Amino acid sequence: MIFKEALKKRELEINAQLESAFDRRLDAPDIIIEAMKYSLFAGGKRLRPILMLETCRCLEGDETIIWPLALGIEMIHTYSLIHDDLPDMDDDDYRRGKLTNHKVYGPATAILAGDALLNYAVETMLKGSKNLSGDELSRYIQAVRVIMGASGILGMIGGQVADLQSENKVIGIDELDYIHLHKTAALLEASVQAACIIAQAQPATQGRLISYSHRVGLAFQIVDDILDVEGDEETLGKPVGSDEKNHKSTFVSLYGLEASRVKVSELEKEAVEMLQPIGSRTVFLQELAHYICSRNQ
Amino acid sequence: MIFKEALKKRELEINAQLESAFDRRLDAPDIIIEAMKYSLFAGGKRLRPILMLETCRCLEGDETIIWPLALGIEMIHTYSLIHDDLPDMDDDDYRRGKLTNHKVYGPATAILAGDALLNYAVETMLKGSKNLSGDELSRYIQAVRVIMGASGILGMIGGQVADLQSENKVIGIDELDYIHLHKTAALLEASVQAACIIAQAQPATQGRLISYSHRVGLAFQIVDDILDVEGDEETLGKPVGSDEKNHKSTFVSLYGLEASRVKVSELEKEAVEMLQPIGSRTVFLQELAHYICSRNQ
Repeated sequence: MIFKEALKKRELEINAQLESAFDRRLDAPDIIIEAMKYSLFAGGKRLRPILMLETCRCLEGDETIIWPLALGIEMIHTYSLIHDDLPDMDDDDYRRGKLTNHKVYGPATAILAGDALLNYAVETMLKGSKNLSGDELSRYIQAVRVIMGASGILGMIGGQVADLQSENKVIGIDELDYIHLHKTAALLEASVQAACIIAQAQPATQGRLISYSHRVGLAFQIVDDILDVEGDEETLGKPVGSDEKNHKSTFVSLYGLEASRVKVSELEKEAVEMLQPIGSRTVFLQELAHYICSRNQ
Repeated sequence: MIFKEALKKRELEINAQLESAFDRRLDAPDIIIEAMKYSLFAGGKRLRPILMLETCRCLEGDETIIWPLALGIEMIHTYSLIHDDLPDMDDDDYRRGKLTNHKVYGPATAILAGDALLNYAVETMLKGSKNLSGDELSRYIQAVRVIMGASGILGMIGGQVADLQSENKVIGIDELDYIHLHKTAALLEASVQAACIIAQAQPATQGRLISYSHRVGLAFQIVDDILDVEGDEETLGKPVGSDEKNHKSTFVSLYGLEASRVKVSELEKEAVEMLQPIGSRTVFLQELAHYICSRNQ
């Protein structure tokens, strides 16, 4: 219960900070700000910023420095969902129980809202470097580079392209691993890695935290695949069965539900084990792994 | 003739540097690299990087530092064209005499290729900060921020949204000015401003250079509008009359061809006058203004 409360508190903090990123008078057409905020505040779980902030906290890093990076990574995640949902991509009408961006604002504005969120993520992150200098600035820029690397062709976009190409054909586990590791796990890993850079984690600790995020990232995606088969549409806020509809190979279609559940348990156990030597400060991250692996939405 | 040769030389240099930005082994699906490069090497005039490099040269700034910014701004310009051409946006089949990105790779890959180019622009620019430190690093990041500000909702994207909203209705000169200044002039101005920051231009000189780029940016857009009415389709590499087809208000539709030509001449004259007090090092930029104002493609 304490974990759930702490999680909720983080979520509210993140929402407030995201709101304040749009506080200043923005001399832009109202509709684009509205479309950006519509998806940014559509009920996301804020997993990436939570991972980043909690990693920073457990390493006793400076939280004020890392906030703009946490906001930036959530904006990047959100833009990727807006574009993923477009008629020319997955053509989804609902996400988290709400109409998708293009269903509300039309595809043209949705394309621009996605572009705008990626651009604004970078603006927000770089604005956070304003008062930094010396090694602190160098580390900060290094963290931004890690995030941008994880969201680009070597990370998330690479995974999205491979995912597109895999439609309507049976793919092997290597290809599926590539898709999962890049499309989903890359940004989760980058959240942890950015925090390690800002908080100057020892190499061994950093290695453990990244292994943790790697496993959590894979588990997250397999749970997604499981929920697409046996989840509850109302709880999920979107139709199930979309992978089958789009003829997509998933962990479930390759190995079956039971083996997928076993895999998630294994990954959770390994993720938690990775953290134990770091000590009691990692309790939140351990519970987060459990939360991600047992989620039903 | 000397100017034309210098321009050609710059263009070739930029093409070579853009090629080398894709040199390293990129562990990404081949198709996305191919789609990104297809539009990046589709015969662009490279005006933004040329403006940036030549401003830097006339200020005797360090050209090795500014190159990654010049490549980044061209990638940003290219991504915006890919998304602009999409079926859900302007729905154009041809650009510069070649099929548009989505006509070759399909809309889904074209959306991702655009996203990827924006992301890679940031990766490329930030990679250029790798060996910088102290004030040099701070200035460099400041220049990146100027570029990202000019490409986001306060700049180019703001202009694109206003442009979308203006379709099928008559707009006034204020709204048209907003669109022109944001959609087109912002990135041209940012090219000059980034160079001023890197080369530590004196405030008065910087003011003159920015006024120059402002006028050149506006003139560039008005010439675009003129060419859409009376240009040669073969030379342009795209159909003319698209503004009329899309019921778009332009400088020409508001003031007529003759007044538009007069306006371009005035802007060219003012732009050149802005540079004269800076001295003979600005000759290339003066000729560039003439080139932009008298172009037929």
